[in-house]
Amino acid sequence: MEEPDIRRLLDRVRTGRLSVAQAVERLRHLPFEDLGFAKIDHHRALRQGFAETVFAPGKTPQQVAGIVRGMLRARASQHNILVTRAGEGIYRAVRRLSRQAKFHPLSGAITIRRNHTSSGKGLILTLSAGTSDIPVAEEACLTGEMMGNRTEAIYDVGVAGLHRLLRHREKLEAARVIICVAGMEGALPSVVAGLVGVPVIAVPTSTGYGTSFAGLTALLAMLNSCASNISVVNIDNGFGAGCFASVINHL
Amino acid sequence: MEEPDIRRLLDRVRTGRLSVAQAVERLRHLPFEDLGFAKIDHHRALRQGFAETVFAPGKTPQQVAGIVRGMLRARASQHNILVTRAGEGIYRAVRRLSRQAKFHPLSGAITIRRNHTSSGKGLILTLSAGTSDIPVAEEACLTGEMMGNRTEAIYDVGVAGLHRLLRHREKLEAARVIICVAGMEGALPSVVAGLVGVPVIAVPTSTGYGTSFAGLTALLAMLNSCASNISVVNIDNGFGAGCFASVINHL
Amino acid sequence: MEEPDIRRLLDRVRTGRLSVAQAVERLRHLPFEDLGFAKIDHHRALRQGFAETVFAPGKTPQQVAGIVRGMLRARASQHNILVTRAGEGIYRAVRRLSRQAKFHPLSGAITIRRNHTSSGKGLILTLSAGTSDIPVAEEACLTGEMMGNRTEAIYDVGVAGLHRLLRHREKLEAARVIICVAGMEGALPSVVAGLVGVPVIAVPTSTGYGTSFAGLTALLAMLNSCASNISVVNIDNGFGAGCFASVINHL
Amino acid sequence: MEEPDIRRLLDRVRTGRLSVAQAVERLRHLPFEDLGFAKIDHHRALRQGFAETVFAPGKTPQQVAGIVRGMLRARASQHNILVTRAGEGIYRAVRRLSRQAKFHPLSGAITIRRNHTSSGKGLILTLSAGTSDIPVAEEACLTGEMMGNRTEAIYDVGVAGLHRLLRHREKLEAARVIICVAGMEGALPSVVAGLVGVPVIAVPTSTGYGTSFAGLTALLAMLNSCASNISVVNIDNGFGAGCFASVINHL
Amino acid sequence: MEEPDIRRLLDRVRTGRLSVAQAVERLRHLPFEDLGFAKIDHHRALRQGFAETVFAPGKTPQQVAGIVRGMLRARASQHNILVTRAGEGIYRAVRRLSRQAKFHPLSGAITIRRNHTSSGKGLILTLSAGTSDIPVAEEACLTGEMMGNRTEAIYDVGVAGLHRLLRHREKLEAARVIICVAGMEGALPSVVAGLVGVPVIAVPTSTGYGTSFAGLTALLAMLNSCASNISVVNIDNGFGAGCFASVINHL
Amino acid sequence: MEEPDIRRLLDRVRTGRLSVAQAVERLRHLPFEDLGFAKIDHHRALRQGFAETVFAPGKTPQQVAGIVRGMLRARASQHNILVTRAGEGIYRAVRRLSRQAKFHPLSGAITIRRNHTSSGKGLILTLSAGTSDIPVAEEACLTGEMMGNRTEAIYDVGVAGLHRLLRHREKLEAARVIICVAGMEGALPSVVAGLVGVPVIAVPTSTGYGTSFAGLTALLAMLNSCASNISVVNIDNGFGAGCFASVINHL
Amino acid sequence: MEEPDIRRLLDRVRTGRLSVAQAVERLRHLPFEDLGFAKIDHHRALRQGFAETVFAPGKTPQQVAGIVRGMLRARASQHNILVTRAGEGIYRAVRRLSRQAKFHPLSGAITIRRNHTSSGKGLILTLSAGTSDIPVAEEACLTGEMMGNRTEAIYDVGVAGLHRLLRHREKLEAARVIICVAGMEGALPSVVAGLVGVPVIAVPTSTGYGTSFAGLTALLAMLNSCASNISVVNIDNGFGAGCFASVINHL
Amino acid sequence: MEEPDIRRLLDRVRTGRLSVAQAVERLRHLPFEDLGFAKIDHHRALRQGFAETVFAPGKTPQQVAGIVRGMLRARASQHNILVTRAGEGIYRAVRRLSRQAKFHPLSGAITIRRNHTSSGKGLILTLSAGTSDIPVAEEACLTGEMMGNRTEAIYDVGVAGLHRLLRHREKLEAARVIICVAGMEGALPSVVAGLVGVPVIAVPTSTGYGTSFAGLTALLAMLNSCASNISVVNIDNGFGAGCFASVINHL
Repeated sequence: MEEPDIRRLLDRVRTGRLSVAQAVERLRHLPFEDLGFAKIDHHRALRQGFAETVFAPGKTPQQVAGIVRGMLRARASQHNILVTRAGEGIYRAVRRLSRQAKFHPLSGAITIRRNHTSSGKGLILTLSAGTSDIPVAEEACLTGEMMGNRTEAIYDVGVAGLHRLLRHREKLEAARVIICVAGMEGALPSVVAGLVGVPVIAVPTSTGYGTSFAGLTALLAMLNSCASNISVVNIDNGFGAGCFASVINHL
Repeated sequence: MEEPDIRRLLDRVRTGRLSVAQAVERLRHLPFEDLGFAKIDHHRALRQGFAETVFAPGKTPQQVAGIVRGMLRARASQHNILVTRAGEGIYRAVRRLSRQAKFHPLSGAITIRRNHTSSGKGLILTLSAGTSDIPVAEEACLTGEMMGNRTEAIYDVGVAGLHRLLRHREKLEAARVIICVAGMEGALPSVVAGLVGVPVIAVPTSTGYGTSFAGLTALLAMLNSCASNISVVNIDNGFGAGCFASVINHL
Repeated sequence: MEEPDIRRLLDRVRTGRLSVAQAVERLRHLPFEDLGFAKIDHHRALRQGFAETVFAPGKTPQQVAGIVRGMLRARASQHNILVTRAGEGIYRAVRRLSRQAKFHPLSGAITIRRNHTSSGKGLILTLSAGTSDIPVAEEACLTGEMMGNRTEAIYDVGVAGLHRLLRHREKLEAARVIICVAGMEGALPSVVAGLVGVPVIAVPTSTGYGTSFAGLTALLAMLNSCASNISVVNIDNGFGAGCFASVINHL
Repeated sequence: MEEPDIRRLLDRVRTGRLSVAQAVERLRHLPFEDLGFAKIDHHRALRQGFAETVFAPGKTPQQVAGIVRGMLRARASQHNILVTRAGEGIYRAVRRLSRQAKFHPLSGAITIRRNHTSSGKGLILTLSAGTSDIPVAEEACLTGEMMGNRTEAIYDVGVAGLHRLLRHREKLEAARVIICVAGMEGALPSVVAGLVGVPVIAVPTSTGYGTSFAGLTALLAMLNSCASNISVVNIDNGFGAGCFASVINHL
Repeated sequence: MEEPDIRRLLDRVRTGRLSVAQAVERLRHLPFEDLGFAKIDHHRALRQGFAETVFAPGKTPQQVAGIVRGMLRARASQHNILVTRAGEGIYRAVRRLSRQAKFHPLSGAITIRRNHTSSGKGLILTLSAGTSDIPVAEEACLTGEMMGNRTEAIYDVGVAGLHRLLRHREKLEAARVIICVAGMEGALPSVVAGLVGVPVIAVPTSTGYGTSFAGLTALLAMLNSCASNISVVNIDNGFGAGCFASVINHL
Repeated sequence: MEEPDIRRLLDRVRTGRLSVAQAVERLRHLPFEDLGFAKIDHHRALRQGFAETVFAPGKTPQQVAGIVRGMLRARASQHNILVTRAGEGIYRAVRRLSRQAKFHPLSGAITIRRNHTSSGKGLILTLSAGTSDIPVAEEACLTGEMMGNRTEAIYDVGVAGLHRLLRHREKLEAARVIICVAGMEGALPSVVAGLVGVPVIAVPTSTGYGTSFAGLTALLAMLNSCASNISVVNIDNGFGAGCFASVINHL
Repeated sequence: MEEPDIRRLLDRVRTGRLSVAQAVERLRHLPFEDLGFAKIDHHRALRQGFAETVFAPGKTPQQVAGIVRGMLRARASQHNILVTRAGEGIYRAVRRLSRQAKFHPLSGAITIRRNHTSSGKGLILTLSAGTSDIPVAEEACLTGEMMGNRTEAIYDVGVAGLHRLLRHREKLEAARVIICVAGMEGALPSVVAGLVGVPVIAVPTSTGYGTSFAGLTALLAMLNSCASNISVVNIDNGFGAGCFASVINHL
Repeated sequence: MEEPDIRRLLDRVRTGRLSVAQAVERLRHLPFEDLGFAKIDHHRALRQGFAETVFAPGKTPQQVAGIVRGMLRARASQHNILVTRAGEGIYRAVRRLSRQAKFHPLSGAITIRRNHTSSGKGLILTLSAGTSDIPVAEEACLTGEMMGNRTEAIYDVGVAGLHRLLRHREKLEAARVIICVAGMEGALPSVVAGLVGVPVIAVPTSTGYGTSFAGLTALLAMLNSCASNISVVNIDNGFGAGCFASVINHL
């Protein structure tokens, strides 16, 4: 029952074709979303940028292709499409559906760009500490891009070689939101957040060995940062960081 | 060595009073901040809002009062002053320094409001799940306020009584940034983030007993939220959430 | 806006005093609970038994007394009142309000019995393994009782002295729901569940030292029980176990 | 030595063919179950519903088929048979034994339905939060069904899209026991338990990545629920939840 | 119903005063321990040594004194009495009951020696690594002694000063059972077990700070010993180690 | 330098062929084991039983065969040989060396029995809770056997079916040492230790799923047993339990 | 902009071709490393020894070969080259580039020795406790060697067979830095550090099973050593230990 | 039996007053330290610097004073004396024994300087990240000083304000060993180790709250540093870091 149905119901009350008691009864069983929250999805699209996403792990190439086919039909040419953590097999299946499909082998992302307007207000800059953090950083960066943001990425600027980071001072100052991707000791966000005045989103990665505990150490370090313009997302959650950055960048 | 000193040094090179070799040597030992990042602190104040903060735990009333006295002198009437996690004793010491000092017994915050301009762009809304989460929520809310933001707070809207939360639908839609404070199962941010399109900052609290593990359970739940417009700060870190919200709200 | 208000609104539509467009707008902002879930609270009371509860930790005697006074007024003589984890000070404050208030020093519970009907269908039996588990067991037992159930408790029947447990065979077979409270190795529920065919609710306690890890070991053991008629609540959560048992016993 | 044997022994004492001393000695070595608890297995079947179960992991197709063959012979047509967490190979082996064997590929369950009476008193409703929780939810639902209960399942009603859950309000109110299956932040049971007055059995799943810690986060969240009509079983233990629900539903 | 009662019952069957059916019914409700396991307690005393124990924590001086008084009466002069982890107040209360009561301030043990026969077969030797491990070591040693064993203790022979341990080579070779008490890195049992051919019981202690995690590190180290004549008890469980050693020494 | 060498050295001092200073210097560099501890290995063999062991994981069939060949030559026919955690490939390689080699597929043990004397004093009884605990139980039992002990094993006597355990009462009372192998909630040793007066060695296994945490839960439960004649070895360490039992049984 | 550029800039100020204001602006954007820290890399090489390293995991043979080719060209014949944790495939690719490439199959290290001067001041001695610790020990030893140190290694000197370690007393006393590699209970560094007066670097390894927790137990034990000349590196971090030892040995 | 005793024994062999057999017997029971390792303590003093230490926690003022009195007598004026983690009461007791006793209230250290020679070869520099890390940093610094090293300390140079650290570049380059003390995210050692070429000893502190887990987060971060000239000591172990630094500085 959508808004037109409610209008119709009230019309029938107005014209006496439906008693008040009957109307009360029907209203009580009204699905929740008919009454106001339905518009939220629309708001979300406006505020967070336009993108449809498929999380590939656990799905067959056929399943992913089926979902993408639905997306391509449903809202033609309006939204970008992003498949995360896919393999070559999934890419081949998606490629058959759209010539624009592009595979990013480091992160396993597949992108189908259909909307080239940049609705975000500033630059989302993604930094990563080590070479093994690049897959997660790329996922974050592509997510931001597919949601309509201008993005850039600088890799391999870990804190044990400070000069590599400081060389990019101007870029740091130009960003509106910064995503910091780091494994091991997870110190990069603390250092970066001390150098800038914008929100820093910290993404721990599951790189490293031994006591890196698959990213737990980096996560804990980031949560304990002595800087106060930092917040944190789940381990390896490049997608979440890109979304959160896009939401901020669309405010 | 500040910028004027560098000018003077170059002037002396220009006029031949200093050799190039001598100048090179002096420049090499130039303190880092003289060369560009010094302006960052200024940027930060502009972007994050104006506030000076003292973290009280581990400090005597005399020590806190000493720091506040310095703040009151240094940049008179410009910045608000916030003391977090203080007790009555500290409040009495601070009260002697400023009549505007106000004590907030739930969170233990002391505020001295000297700047009433609201530099942030929208409303920062703080929600808390249970009554025992209020101290942390109040700290978050006051931090946002002292940093120049319009703030509101709604307490006791935990997810096991959904109607209490849904009653505030309009307020949720009016906020530009939302801070969700919750202990125990930490489910509030997930539910709220699904209802809105703005950034949600999740703050786990150390309330609960047994397997709440002093907030660890709430933290983990928040990091695993199935919503994508959420990021997380340290347990009980109301101050950090308020700062992060203010940084976003000043973009 | 309660149901009568909705009726009135529809009446005004019917009689033409309110346009359909105006009515749609008002309905959209209808508070959630007006539309059906409001009756849930009533259902819950019927299904779970009648009791009002105050969780005392973190509250002053004055605060607890204030809440109890409200309960005593609001729905006079209908519901039992239970205060959990209170001390002597709180008891004295509550005692002034009601002569029926009774203190249970082991668990720190205060009970005010106002409703003596036993609405639950069978016996809730609470077992505890060691003497130090008694406070939690008593809380569970009293909760069940205050929610309108017939209850019994048997203490000190830990598995290392099997004959102490087996002596109570007939009681075990008579119960409709069994609550098993145990710390240390948490083995009691497994043994009991193997002896009966009814639901067993396992409550780990924070007794023990060293690797008991404040109840974590007992909790984990209970979650791994090889019996299949067991489920588990939080460490020391006697109240939760009593509630859950009462909900089952009122089905 | 079964009850008839005891009778015979006493008869021989009565008739003087056995001395009292000899009888005492024999009684002392009486196997335990001859004296009362033997009837428990019968009670359990009555109370928990009728089903024989095989836990497939670690067993070869031949081994599972052997066990099922025994079950099919032993109590012909009386009990349903359930094999959990099996693969195609095991299914083919079981299929050869019974034409009624049915494979459920999502959960890996094999069911042989021989008893169609519904001995449980009400509806067991299984809810799952995300698509990756479906295997565990299906196992829970099939377990309930095979134990003689009327069951239904609703999938993909996670809390970040509240309207999807609230749409099923009437079904929620119709259930006698609810099983909530959720991974990641594990918030679904808290929200559901707040909406209903019946027992909610929470099942954490090992879905998610990073700090989901293979279901630990969901488990902890569920144990800390602020609702009081919840109890919890082991991670991924759909079978246990189905059993526990059936035990309740047969009371 | 003790063995004489069973005899009488059978007598009445023999003489026809009780029907077989009545006898069956009574036997079915026979308490478990009447049928064989009752003699276990007697065996345990013989095998483990004679001692009555009170675990003091959580008990008032009056409560402990009450229990000890009962012990003193019940089996006069036969068993030794051991109170563990007591304070001065408890000692004074116990001292009033028995002049033989002796306080051991390091471990907080109170001993009342009433039986001086040494029923154990060899020497129980207790070693401790550091000075802060002495309380637990003393508890272990006194427990062994009170259970009728010849005991000796050597303190402060940690592995970082190997010569201190090796000096006691002859004593090591003379022992029948060795108890090794160590906190911090918990390495002592590994080194000792490599030097001897008898059972080594490892007791981790909660000494140390930081990553000693209140004895967890020592416990884990002991469980991973590369020697194979080691087994482990709970952290700080000197009493358990003494009991286990005594059980072995009485074989 | 063995004892004869020392004699020779002293002889040369006695006859003046070596000065005292030279002798002191040589003695200072004397290898440690020449001076007393060398005899320990002999003692160990006597006290712990005779067996040579190879831990197979990480070794190729060729490597294991090489070690076994050395054992077969070195002390022909005296010691039994035990290879633990091997596969079929290793067995075939060992089988070529000795016709007596026997493979135990459940535990992966290979035994070569060369010494049939039973040097241990009593029976070592191994109990296991579930069918998946059998591999570890078999390893424990075979280790005891190969070290010269009389052994027996009873499988599948978990605590949720108490009558299965209690049926073996006489066997329990006949044992001199008992090994209890259990995963999941690890409750078996507590129950058994309460029924007997001899040492119980608890072996946690890595069976189970979810919160069994690969045996950690069972381990913790065993360390927290309320019985006092229990000690514990590492997870899955059947070999260690068998050794420890043998050391006790040879006292 | 390197130092010559700064000279040129100052020259242009001196000769009036650049205004002071322009020079200030350019200096502000000076990359950080131009101003003093650039020389650090040179210092590091001098102090830590000369070696280029490639961490192979996650890289294809082609990628590793490409990096090594660059190293071989860049600073011909000056630095040694070390590839860690490689496999046979990577070795074959590297072997084609340099005949001096040597494969060490235990640790998976590939070494190309181009500089045979021993710049370190003393001997770095590496000890390992068990045979399964050898891979990590070899990595540590080769790292030290490739960085220009004299090295030796002694394997299989675990603390449960103390005489094996004590036999090497003279070697222990001759070392300037000692690396101790151990898994399981991690006791070796404590014992060794008690015997010598030089720095001991402890390396935990991920050997063992059950509660060895992939090296965590050894790590914790080492951090809690009662000796004070010990410090610790990450689990399995033989490379880090070799580096740290070399840094010390070059002081 | 010291070396002179061995000489005498050999003399008696030489002169025939002792048979060879008797001498062999006596040598076998020779205390271990008589044979070579006795000199180690002397070496340690030379290599590690001269200082006697008392760890105060758990000791009464009288006990500490007693130990210090012994030290003052034993090796008069040679060694410095250090008492760690003491309070005012202990200081007063020690002050009575020596006028040179000095109290350091931040760390609770008491120092008695009797030896002013600086035997260490270079400067030990201690850095700390936050103000709450100063107590541990002071302990480290004083330990180094009392062991005969030149020391300096720089506090409050955390990585979120990089310019504060970089200002001290020259001091960093002048140090021979650096101790980095940090809590929270523990990032300081990584950044510092990237700037220097000398050994960096990382000390995690138990400062912070929530997920700082009393220093565990800082410890893990330090163990995972991407720099390779770092090693780590236990949480809050300033004393150990000072010792380790002194051992290096005396090489």
